[in-house]
Amino acid sequence: MTLDIAKIQTTLLAAADAAAAVTLPLFRTDLGIDNKLAAGFDPVTEADRSAETAIRAVIAQAFPDHAIIGEEWGSSGESEFTWIIDPVDGTRAFITGAPVWGTLIGFAHNGVAIAGLMSQPFIGETFLATPGGATYRRNGQTQPLRASGLTELASARVFTTTPSLFNSPELLAKWQALEAATRLQRFGLDCYGYALLAAGHADIVIEPSLNTYDIAALVPIIRQAGGAIACWDGSEPTGGGNVVAAATPELLEKALALVNAN
Amino acid sequence: MTLDIAKIQTTLLAAADAAAAVTLPLFRTDLGIDNKLAAGFDPVTEADRSAETAIRAVIAQAFPDHAIIGEEWGSSGESEFTWIIDPVDGTRAFITGAPVWGTLIGFAHNGVAIAGLMSQPFIGETFLATPGGATYRRNGQTQPLRASGLTELASARVFTTTPSLFNSPELLAKWQALEAATRLQRFGLDCYGYALLAAGHADIVIEPSLNTYDIAALVPIIRQAGGAIACWDGSEPTGGGNVVAAATPELLEKALALVNAN
Repeated sequence: MTLDIAKIQTTLLAAADAAAAVTLPLFRTDLGIDNKLAAGFDPVTEADRSAETAIRAVIAQAFPDHAIIGEEWGSSGESEFTWIIDPVDGTRAFITGAPVWGTLIGFAHNGVAIAGLMSQPFIGETFLATPGGATYRRNGQTQPLRASGLTELASARVFTTTPSLFNSPELLAKWQALEAATRLQRFGLDCYGYALLAAGHADIVIEPSLNTYDIAALVPIIRQAGGAIACWDGSEPTGGGNVVAAATPELLEKALALVNAN
Repeated sequence: MTLDIAKIQTTLLAAADAAAAVTLPLFRTDLGIDNKLAAGFDPVTEADRSAETAIRAVIAQAFPDHAIIGEEWGSSGESEFTWIIDPVDGTRAFITGAPVWGTLIGFAHNGVAIAGLMSQPFIGETFLATPGGATYRRNGQTQPLRASGLTELASARVFTTTPSLFNSPELLAKWQALEAATRLQRFGLDCYGYALLAAGHADIVIEPSLNTYDIAALVPIIRQAGGAIACWDGSEPTGGGNVVAAATPELLEKALALVNAN
């Protein structure tokens, strides 16, 4: 295979722009909220649905032979190359007006994400990775993304979206062990936490039960920034599952050891 | 007394600009983090300290006779008029790169905040209240702030910074009762949650053990936007304490009844 990296990057950025044109006019409005599940609360906004349609159109035009997996509209196509989309990751943030949701677009080869983008269009931020590196873009400026380089659990800043994700005594024990071993914990960031890890502002992000579209786009962003990411059993996280990301391979190993010992 | 509302507003905005000139260059850098407490972790950044100094200078020039209370440098002066400052509310957000911290400046008359400002300079947002009303400012545009108008607990979107604030079985029971009675909960927003409530995107914010500088600036923003805010015993919250804010007086009453029954 020959990968046209420049075209992949152009497509990621164009797809994010197309998504933002849909999501931004709907952010901080009362429009389009309904419930995906009869029980519980899983909001899907009009933004989510329309943004995925817009992203798919951009990808299909650029790479008509590639497969696409999206949160809203499922899987289409078969290929060694797959685009993996979450049009609005952090829908709770979106519907409560908090600008820490993101549009996630990943690009995987044979099940491993090698390029990806997280965009937060209200703030105007783009976190982008290709096999050539990871960058942060805002206000027309581009700078490299660099994880913190931290190797010690005791100094780590840890993110998870909410402790209620750890919804069994076994899972909760893992979170509590990590909480006790680290310096600072924060909640509520969804994909934005992984982006901040790639930018060096957090050291560990841990979440159970992710879908592929929650994490695929973030995998190359973290790796190209010098961080490391895996499922709790050490396997490749592009497909989803119980995931932990860390600022360095050393820190990831320590976090995995702790999670698996508790 | 005669209040020069225009001058108070000008001073709030000028003080926020002075603070942003200090905080923004330090946001998302590795500078200036140390520990206020030997035990636990309570980060104070250089941003916090220098920003309060900058805010105090603006206020002292405009209103030399007024009292000032700040998180970093304590109380100064005696007056029926008090300016109440938290230069960086949400220091954990600040040091982890999450743009949901804010600069809080309140203006109180005889212990009740009647004007205030919350500024998030990285995003470029200002939430402002004077006795004339509450506004949201961004990108040179100003629009009125309006809380959601919600009156029913079952539909409410509820924020608190972290469930670990409810650090006793008695406190935790109150949070869990509210969690069970409401539609959606989110963590991690500090002052930003109150600002989103004033803007209609959240319906209840609850936090125990606030200091006056955590909440004074937000009190008039919530009230002028149509919301309501009180301590759990129904008393005035400008001075701090256990606080709940709600989109309407009716919803506040229901939240208070629930909190006090559990």
